[in-house]
Amino acid sequence: MDDSALRPTFSWLVGVSQVLGLASVVLTGVWMGHYRGGFAWDGTAQEFNVHPLCMVLGLVFLQGDAILVYRVFRKEPKKNIKLLHGIIHLLALIISIVGFVAVFDYHKQAKIADVYSLHSWCGIATFGLFCIQWLMGLLFFLFPVASASLRASYLPIHVFCGLVLLVLSIGSSLLGITEKLLFAIMSTYSQFPAEGVLANTLGIVLVCFGVVLCYVVTKEEYRRPPNSEEEPLSVYFRHLTEGRSPTTP
Amino acid sequence: MDDSALRPTFSWLVGVSQVLGLASVVLTGVWMGHYRGGFAWDGTAQEFNVHPLCMVLGLVFLQGDAILVYRVFRKEPKKNIKLLHGIIHLLALIISIVGFVAVFDYHKQAKIADVYSLHSWCGIATFGLFCIQWLMGLLFFLFPVASASLRASYLPIHVFCGLVLLVLSIGSSLLGITEKLLFAIMSTYSQFPAEGVLANTLGIVLVCFGVVLCYVVTKEEYRRPPNSEEEPLSVYFRHLTEGRSPTTP
Repeated sequence: MDDSALRPTFSWLVGVSQVLGLASVVLTGVWMGHYRGGFAWDGTAQEFNVHPLCMVLGLVFLQGDAILVYRVFRKEPKKNIKLLHGIIHLLALIISIVGFVAVFDYHKQAKIADVYSLHSWCGIATFGLFCIQWLMGLLFFLFPVASASLRASYLPIHVFCGLVLLVLSIGSSLLGITEKLLFAIMSTYSQFPAEGVLANTLGIVLVCFGVVLCYVVTKEEYRRPPNSEEEPLSVYFRHLTEGRSPTTP
Repeated sequence: MDDSALRPTFSWLVGVSQVLGLASVVLTGVWMGHYRGGFAWDGTAQEFNVHPLCMVLGLVFLQGDAILVYRVFRKEPKKNIKLLHGIIHLLALIISIVGFVAVFDYHKQAKIADVYSLHSWCGIATFGLFCIQWLMGLLFFLFPVASASLRASYLPIHVFCGLVLLVLSIGSSLLGITEKLLFAIMSTYSQFPAEGVLANTLGIVLVCFGVVLCYVVTKEEYRRPPNSEEEPLSVYFRHLTEGRSPTTP
């Protein structure tokens, strides 16, 4: 299909994904800021509140957008997009680390046991796999130490794992929302208090963000068209990794 | 790649998915049967226990396997596979309805409020969309009332929505596990009791089932090869839906 015919729906879908992503960050901020006492870094419950905000911002919104750049800027040179993809993921990684430190530090100060819940099991598995995926991406694609054929074999795995990690991040966030609500408002949750409705809405917004993003990323027609500068780039990388100059035949 | 070269890994992956799917059903049965007092249909907590077992069996295991049949029997005539796909989904639908009746009946008897939690919001949305997807599949593909071109446009949406529904079902199950554990063993959950570890393990097994299944279903090389009998079938359907006999040019 003609690219210009696809463009309006594509732009609309990307716009919707951004509204949903930003809404999820704002809703998390409002929930923690307004209903849970705000933010601090002092070992209290206010330090815990940094955790959901960082995870939704880092592992959901930024991770989603890092994946989306390949579709949004699909006419830009691939090496620039690779760099942008890596930088947004690095930002997501740093923000996620802050989120993890916040919850472990709060648990330590409040003498709360660590990693016993399904939320923590899923969250830690997701974060561990995210770190491995980031490192592998760095080694294979930004500083390619693997051969061109190995990179080509790894690419579909990297793409599949990226989407799995985004879905796992959203799933872990939903588990975190449920856990936090049952710890905080179990006695009133069934009476549809504003906090419960807001947090449930946050969960639904996160799911919608994931669905729209996965749709845009997996839709065949929205894929990156073959680019004339990609072949020389891959040839350059092959020569580089095989220890030869790209100018040598 | 040659089909015979792909077959061992494919068979191994399908085997792993079946072990994970069956393990999730068995673990749910053991959790509800051994730790939560077993099963009954009398409005008590034992009736509630039917709910998780039915949802994991119907909306996760059977829904997953209904999707998988297109890959496992990819050399069989497509009309047979369509029928099998529809029948397994019908079975999943019936079992899910029993699961839904169980929880609503228990809530009614025990005077517990309905649909206030994120688990119930996600679960009901998933089930509602599952019903719509099943009906649409029935109308478009088993008793095709739509034109061939409309069916061809709808197919990728049907496939995408099917995977989204499987992932949503697994996500809703994980939320249900967390909710049930916090209602039942909140005071001891952090001490890693056997029930908590078993239920968390069930959650991880469900995630692994989803990942393996999505991998097998989305991997390009495992797709159904074009089949000579599919073209005449689609022509037949087009004639049927356009009110002409297939023998008429």
